[in-house]
Amino acid sequence: MEKNTAGSYEGRQNHIRSLSFPAIEVFENIYADKEYSIHIEFPEFTAICPKTGLPDFGIVSIEYFPDKWCLELKSLKEYFLAYRNVGIFHENVVNRVMDDIVAAAQMHKASVVVKYGTRGGIVTTVSRSYTR
Amino acid sequence: MEKNTAGSYEGRQNHIRSLSFPAIEVFENIYADKEYSIHIEFPEFTAICPKTGLPDFGIVSIEYFPDKWCLELKSLKEYFLAYRNVGIFHENVVNRVMDDIVAAAQMHKASVVVKYGTRGGIVTTVSRSYTR
Amino acid sequence: MEKNTAGSYEGRQNHIRSLSFPAIEVFENIYADKEYSIHIEFPEFTAICPKTGLPDFGIVSIEYFPDKWCLELKSLKEYFLAYRNVGIFHENVVNRVMDDIVAAAQMHKASVVVKYGTRGGIVTTVSRSYTR
Amino acid sequence: MEKNTAGSYEGRQNHIRSLSFPAIEVFENIYADKEYSIHIEFPEFTAICPKTGLPDFGIVSIEYFPDKWCLELKSLKEYFLAYRNVGIFHENVVNRVMDDIVAAAQMHKASVVVKYGTRGGIVTTVSRSYTR
Amino acid sequence: MEKNTAGSYEGRQNHIRSLSFPAIEVFENIYADKEYSIHIEFPEFTAICPKTGLPDFGIVSIEYFPDKWCLELKSLKEYFLAYRNVGIFHENVVNRVMDDIVAAAQMHKASVVVKYGTRGGIVTTVSRSYTR
Amino acid sequence: MEKNTAGSYEGRQNHIRSLSFPAIEVFENIYADKEYSIHIEFPEFTAICPKTGLPDFGIVSIEYFPDKWCLELKSLKEYFLAYRNVGIFHENVVNRVMDDIVAAAQMHKASVVVKYGTRGGIVTTVSRSYTR
Amino acid sequence: MEKNTAGSYEGRQNHIRSLSFPAIEVFENIYADKEYSIHIEFPEFTAICPKTGLPDFGIVSIEYFPDKWCLELKSLKEYFLAYRNVGIFHENVVNRVMDDIVAAAQMHKASVVVKYGTRGGIVTTVSRSYTR
Amino acid sequence: MEKNTAGSYEGRQNHIRSLSFPAIEVFENIYADKEYSIHIEFPEFTAICPKTGLPDFGIVSIEYFPDKWCLELKSLKEYFLAYRNVGIFHENVVNRVMDDIVAAAQMHKASVVVKYGTRGGIVTTVSRSYTR
Amino acid sequence: MEKNTAGSYEGRQNHIRSLSFPAIEVFENIYADKEYSIHIEFPEFTAICPKTGLPDFGIVSIEYFPDKWCLELKSLKEYFLAYRNVGIFHENVVNRVMDDIVAAAQMHKASVVVKYGTRGGIVTTVSRSYTR
Amino acid sequence: MEKNTAGSYEGRQNHIRSLSFPAIEVFENIYADKEYSIHIEFPEFTAICPKTGLPDFGIVSIEYFPDKWCLELKSLKEYFLAYRNVGIFHENVVNRVMDDIVAAAQMHKASVVVKYGTRGGIVTTVSRSYTR
Repeated sequence: MEKNTAGSYEGRQNHIRSLSFPAIEVFENIYADKEYSIHIEFPEFTAICPKTGLPDFGIVSIEYFPDKWCLELKSLKEYFLAYRNVGIFHENVVNRVMDDIVAAAQMHKASVVVKYGTRGGIVTTVSRSYTR
Repeated sequence: MEKNTAGSYEGRQNHIRSLSFPAIEVFENIYADKEYSIHIEFPEFTAICPKTGLPDFGIVSIEYFPDKWCLELKSLKEYFLAYRNVGIFHENVVNRVMDDIVAAAQMHKASVVVKYGTRGGIVTTVSRSYTR
Repeated sequence: MEKNTAGSYEGRQNHIRSLSFPAIEVFENIYADKEYSIHIEFPEFTAICPKTGLPDFGIVSIEYFPDKWCLELKSLKEYFLAYRNVGIFHENVVNRVMDDIVAAAQMHKASVVVKYGTRGGIVTTVSRSYTR
Repeated sequence: MEKNTAGSYEGRQNHIRSLSFPAIEVFENIYADKEYSIHIEFPEFTAICPKTGLPDFGIVSIEYFPDKWCLELKSLKEYFLAYRNVGIFHENVVNRVMDDIVAAAQMHKASVVVKYGTRGGIVTTVSRSYTR
Repeated sequence: MEKNTAGSYEGRQNHIRSLSFPAIEVFENIYADKEYSIHIEFPEFTAICPKTGLPDFGIVSIEYFPDKWCLELKSLKEYFLAYRNVGIFHENVVNRVMDDIVAAAQMHKASVVVKYGTRGGIVTTVSRSYTR
Repeated sequence: MEKNTAGSYEGRQNHIRSLSFPAIEVFENIYADKEYSIHIEFPEFTAICPKTGLPDFGIVSIEYFPDKWCLELKSLKEYFLAYRNVGIFHENVVNRVMDDIVAAAQMHKASVVVKYGTRGGIVTTVSRSYTR
Repeated sequence: MEKNTAGSYEGRQNHIRSLSFPAIEVFENIYADKEYSIHIEFPEFTAICPKTGLPDFGIVSIEYFPDKWCLELKSLKEYFLAYRNVGIFHENVVNRVMDDIVAAAQMHKASVVVKYGTRGGIVTTVSRSYTR
Repeated sequence: MEKNTAGSYEGRQNHIRSLSFPAIEVFENIYADKEYSIHIEFPEFTAICPKTGLPDFGIVSIEYFPDKWCLELKSLKEYFLAYRNVGIFHENVVNRVMDDIVAAAQMHKASVVVKYGTRGGIVTTVSRSYTR
Repeated sequence: MEKNTAGSYEGRQNHIRSLSFPAIEVFENIYADKEYSIHIEFPEFTAICPKTGLPDFGIVSIEYFPDKWCLELKSLKEYFLAYRNVGIFHENVVNRVMDDIVAAAQMHKASVVVKYGTRGGIVTTVSRSYTR
Repeated sequence: MEKNTAGSYEGRQNHIRSLSFPAIEVFENIYADKEYSIHIEFPEFTAICPKTGLPDFGIVSIEYFPDKWCLELKSLKEYFLAYRNVGIFHENVVNRVMDDIVAAAQMHKASVVVKYGTRGGIVTTVSRSYTR
């Protein structure tokens, strides 16, 4: 590879896309005939930095426009708790969370944002939007 | 149902769309020939969580562009107070409030937002917009 | 009237549109060939609630793009002070102020916002925009 | 003049457009092939109110997209200091500053905003945008 | 040159475009098939003012939409640290950082903002956006 | 009574001192040999105004230095919830809460503060300190 | 008088100490055997400046430790409203309010603070404490 | 036991006082002849709630006046990380941390404060001070 | 002088103690039999730096417990305005203001604080207290 | 040494007490007969971490009651700049700064506080007070 890449990174995170996490439950949206949005903030997210093995802390925000299903909060919380001992990069958390909530609730639109605590004097925020 | 649904939820909230609430009164808009908006914030909303039976607390915001009628604040406050002992999910509060203010004042446009207090470390905000 | 109206309201405020207020003076815009905006905030507005007879307090904001004339601030302040003993609903203050500043300065565009103090646990903000 | 004007105002400020101020120096933009913006805030602006002779205080903000030249900050500061003893209305400060920075640096786009301190309970902000 | 330029400026900074800085490493974006953004804030940036020789302090923000590569944070921090003893104007920092991150990660879109500390009562913020 | 008292008040609240509330449970303080303090904030307190019958909302804060027992939070929350339908003046809430927590945990020192939401444009905070 | 006094002031305000205001009602303190404090904030105070005839606006705060009586809020609000058309200096408002609440409720201790809005670029706060 | 205790609590936490945690290292205070203080804030503390098994999150603050030794930050961080999977009540975290830092650095004075995130609508802060 | 002094400073400011400023007027304190305090904030203070000749900006705060006289605000404002073209060090402003208000109003106690804007990245606040 | 010390620390910093720094100049206090204080905040302090070789950033605050001499700000700024390339622990910065300002200005009283930026998720503040 001719790029100036940090070699030890790659290969270590490809398994993230297929890693097993607890199922996110949904419940019926009794106002599915209306367009509205639901914003959820989970300020107590923690995972493990795959490079240092030390814990990372972040604030996860999800906003979505439900179709037939709404995300059930208790199972969503348990889903987030499952990251506690997983080694995963910031960029991948956002993408994996988005894929999982879309698979669970098949919403019209969604966005996922994770804002991480300071590391080495640097603050990182990763964001992804989805439209069906 | 093949979805991974939280079974005990559904069925419990369908009655919300037809539940009886106090009437929201209106008064004549003497500037109905002008386009303008009215924003109302009610920071003392409380209802009952249908799963736990414990009280939820939230801040309700309404913004609307009146046509012939304006929402009368005293009756609106009494309308909100009527949720105090009702078991209702966050998502449904917003939708029911929207349907009721539109029926009462037949405004040009409206939005309803409810921001709930922290539960299980999670903060939820539900929003709906309406255009006639 | 088949509407669920708060009867005692109407009729009481129609005179607002023709009530006499002090004149708002203007001065010549020496940069009338340029498009620019002027934002004025008056945080000490007070009027009387027509239902209770008790004083209301609010913050009035005006933004406008002047044409040939600018609003003179001293006369504008006196204009606002004239509401001190007037019984007038929130919705009508915004509309009357807009009509009066447009008549005085014939600006290209304007907006008027009044944010009221808490009453019965409710915060109200009324806004109107104008384009010539 | 049939307008309800504050007579003593006009005539007094027309000279502002031709008043002499210190030159604003510029330096070569070595990234003139890139589009980027520069935002400058000067929180210590003071001039004289032409009606009362008392000092006014304000915060001047400039944002611009440079073409071949950038505004040199030291000369810009001296330019602002020259208003210290000038009697000039809020509206005219913004317009004169815009004309002078455009003449000096011939930028692609610019905006000038001045936010003034409270006078008679009133807060004023004047803004102008420019596109070449 | 007929412009009113601050003569001693030019010539001094043209070398900035070719100055050598440490390489910014990248790692493979395992979600390259998704559109998402990464925001990085580095609040501890310092360089030297080329006019006075005194240190400047600023906050660097980068936001980008990665294509095949993500910026590796540790090497990015070392890249920023290399400015510590470089004499460079505010405007040029932003442009040089943008050129270097685009060369390293060839992202879809990016923006770079540097907000500097007060100098002579003046606060400066420089911003540049990039779309491939 | 020669005082200028609001007659209808008294007599109505004397029963508050003997009203029955749920028991506040305690657990053993395993660091009873150390002096330390515990501060608890419950931002979702609501009771009924005995004059108007309308709900009041407040934020309850308790700080105490435990002796042999600590207040158990779940039972404390249930204790607060029991006020939801009780008609009680602001002043009396603070005093009753203090008497009940002291009876339950026999702490060295304690303070109770309740800050109420705006009523009639007035914000009320009631505070009491206790030392054994 | 050899002092450098603003002559027209004195004489004008001596009547304030004997001016008639609405009675402040009290109600029985059913926890008079406990020491606790009550803090009341009234953010909507307005009176008239005796020099200019223009309205002043302020925030009145009262804190007191009740003995046998508590201040009744509705009558206190009416007492404050009575200042709306009274010409009175800032310094005298605080002193008169203190004398009146002490006469009404004969509390153990009290403090009164009034913070006024900006006038001529100056912000004034007047405070008085009382111990029986 | 005649107290109204939450029975299942006690017995479960007594082992906390003797639980094994990583050693907190110290380094020599080269200014031991001077009195000064060191304040450390660790905003990323997490442990397990012994009742629910769910994670708790808090902010730990330590302030101390060193004698011959200072707390070494890297080992202190590792010490805090060791709580990540420990079931421990809020009250006990503060006491155990205090005992451990005093044993390690034998400082003149110290205080430990832990502020926890919201649980069941309740925010808890536990504090302990120590003087040798 | 054996001290490492910045020689050009001294001698330049000794005249400040005898420099002539406008008189500060007072008015009779009709509540001179009560102890209370008056706090005045003047956020628009400006003077000249004696070293650079450039303007300094600051916020002046005065708090005092009046005896027989109160400071008259209009003359106080004119007194502050007189510093606009005076070359004076930060330290000396506070001392001169204190001497002048004490001479004018012979109050029981007073404090003067001036907080200056950033210069060379440094923020300075000078404070003096006085008790008769 | 029987302590659990981080061995590589000691020995490395003892030279700090005798390291050479630029002289802090002083100027004559023309109000030396008055007691007053001067507070200086320098938000742009940077030094090198002796363990990692990476830069640390902090905010230095000094407050002192001058006797015959005041600290001259320009030389103080140059004194702070001299730490830019010095490897020094947080605890030692505060102590060395205090020793140097006391030697320079022999003030009555002084305090020095340095608040450092986040490192490893930890925020550190070091403080020392001095009385002659």
